[in-house]
Amino acid sequence: MRQAVEAIDLTQRRVQVRSMETGHTVQQPFDALLIAAGAVPICPPVEGITAAGIYTVNTLQQGVDLRDTLDRHPIKRVVVVGAGAIGLEMAENLVARGVDVSMVDLAPQVLPPLDPDMATRVAQALEALGVHLYLNEGLQGFDTQNGHVTAVITPQRALPADLVILGLGVRPNATLAADAGLALGEKGAILVDERMQASHEGIWAAGDCVTSRHVVSGRPVYVALGTVANKQGRIAGLNIAGEHATFPGVAGTAITKVHRTEIARTGLQTTDFARLGLDAVSVTIQGTTRARYYPGVEEMTVKLFAEKGSGRILGGQIVGGTGAAKRIDVIVAALFARMTADQFVNLDLAYAPPFSPTWDPLLIAARALLKRV
Amino acid sequence: MRQAVEAIDLTQRRVQVRSMETGHTVQQPFDALLIAAGAVPICPPVEGITAAGIYTVNTLQQGVDLRDTLDRHPIKRVVVVGAGAIGLEMAENLVARGVDVSMVDLAPQVLPPLDPDMATRVAQALEALGVHLYLNEGLQGFDTQNGHVTAVITPQRALPADLVILGLGVRPNATLAADAGLALGEKGAILVDERMQASHEGIWAAGDCVTSRHVVSGRPVYVALGTVANKQGRIAGLNIAGEHATFPGVAGTAITKVHRTEIARTGLQTTDFARLGLDAVSVTIQGTTRARYYPGVEEMTVKLFAEKGSGRILGGQIVGGTGAAKRIDVIVAALFARMTADQFVNLDLAYAPPFSPTWDPLLIAARALLKRV
Repeated sequence: MRQAVEAIDLTQRRVQVRSMETGHTVQQPFDALLIAAGAVPICPPVEGITAAGIYTVNTLQQGVDLRDTLDRHPIKRVVVVGAGAIGLEMAENLVARGVDVSMVDLAPQVLPPLDPDMATRVAQALEALGVHLYLNEGLQGFDTQNGHVTAVITPQRALPADLVILGLGVRPNATLAADAGLALGEKGAILVDERMQASHEGIWAAGDCVTSRHVVSGRPVYVALGTVANKQGRIAGLNIAGEHATFPGVAGTAITKVHRTEIARTGLQTTDFARLGLDAVSVTIQGTTRARYYPGVEEMTVKLFAEKGSGRILGGQIVGGTGAAKRIDVIVAALFARMTADQFVNLDLAYAPPFSPTWDPLLIAARALLKRV
Repeated sequence: MRQAVEAIDLTQRRVQVRSMETGHTVQQPFDALLIAAGAVPICPPVEGITAAGIYTVNTLQQGVDLRDTLDRHPIKRVVVVGAGAIGLEMAENLVARGVDVSMVDLAPQVLPPLDPDMATRVAQALEALGVHLYLNEGLQGFDTQNGHVTAVITPQRALPADLVILGLGVRPNATLAADAGLALGEKGAILVDERMQASHEGIWAAGDCVTSRHVVSGRPVYVALGTVANKQGRIAGLNIAGEHATFPGVAGTAITKVHRTEIARTGLQTTDFARLGLDAVSVTIQGTTRARYYPGVEEMTVKLFAEKGSGRILGGQIVGGTGAAKRIDVIVAALFARMTADQFVNLDLAYAPPFSPTWDPLLIAARALLKRV
């Protein structure tokens, strides 16, 4: 039976639940409440936004619907609005289906969680795949015909489109929580403590609807990712069940790919440092995924950040061939452990020619960084 | 000009150097001496060991010679003595050349740095490749004909061989150091401090000829690996140049593969715990390299160890498909940072379907381990 919660009463400790079949509402008392309401895709209120043929891909069902549409209709031209991870993944898979793909974004680069020099490598991979990339171009609206989208309008051009995909990110689904009087934090997400408890005793929240703490900066951040949501759900569940569990926070780790180019990042990046008052240095090095003489070796680029003086690792970014991106996890562990570049450089990372050069590219980056901290 | 050091005089601070061309020797004074003499392959003094057709693969040139022999002669049957990493790599590449390969080892399992349950998976991969595996069978000697090897003899059988490869490990090349009066440690390797200085001021040593400290146990160990040697060389060089650099030690990290099966390990394992007086627990979990629904997903098995009570991670082992083994590096970082399973389980490791399930297999292992520590 499908039901929707319509209101949360923090004083009476009950929720108002409406049955989607019968329309009846009941008051459901609770001892503890977990809010796991997720996020909703951002849909800017521009002209034509409600036209048919404009898709978001936030749920599995939306993905299935989109694929069905592509299977059943002669879709030749798709415009992807937004050059984030979702936009990139959609573009890659549309190209694989033989569709002509254009991508527009107001930002001057793809993937803002990367530094511009690293993002340029990703843009090159997209263009090599045949994606037409229009950066520095904001979405102004849509042309429509008979209620169906026909073009995406930017200040510079009208891009003809049989179908449009919006990949403009998500915002926390925190309306009910806000209406109930729970405190909100970063980007309007539900404010929770390290046990995942909201501003009222016995009200818990986890996943794409809550704020997180950044393990490097210590500041609140909003991160909507399945892997973070899962970890937070586990912590909330343990606490509701009477244990004492804490969530240490997120590092902003992300990984994706464009065809054969792997991309990953974690921690802070150049745009963060001034805002946080951190004096940071960085290096960007060229390495290889395997020993240079080993079959299948590919290039990989590593950018690594550390705090000047202390040498503490602050973040990292990787763009490269097969096997490059998942190496980011070593930097993640270093961030959680507050490791310095000096400690990092001697890590006994695995080496054999099919897997790594004698000095793993991460260690080469740490060595280069040591000369600057 | 090829030269060989014949003796080290610690009192006079000079080495005796013989020219390999002229046979003349000179006394070469030094301010600082770095011994980087490497290791030599273990060749047991059994009957027939000096016969032609018995190869070790310790140097690049030995590898080239071996390949030339395989190119030029009708080699049909090769016996590999020793089921360690070198033996496995040789077996894989010989099979790829169409050679019939048998492998013998005195141990009851392949790859002793793995626990038996994990080693069994590797043995299966070897057998799937067509390698005939004879475990619990020590090398007794060789049959020869006209000075050339014709069979490998074990207590159980005679294995016909056109060529034999010895992969019985290495021992430190520390003869000169011992003769000079330098202290030796684990397995007869040159004893060095954390700056890579030997037992005499101004005498430094690094690489396959020295002892290392295990970062988990704190005990001396002997590890002969290129990546460790490189790191130690860097530390010795920095110190000789007047800086103060220290080498934190090794975790015993190793990585290899058998055809499409990747294998990695780090830290301590079951056989270590009783000896070290550690109360340890372990879990072995089945995971996948990618999201289960994503094309190219493969199985991977993770074994993880922690200390009972403290929960401190003590080591890990991985056997699995493409992308499985290099994940060991996250465990390496955890070992160097003395991380507990409780800290490890919340690491913000990278997730996207082409790279990982929502919970990375390493985190699934840590979760399972938490129930036992």
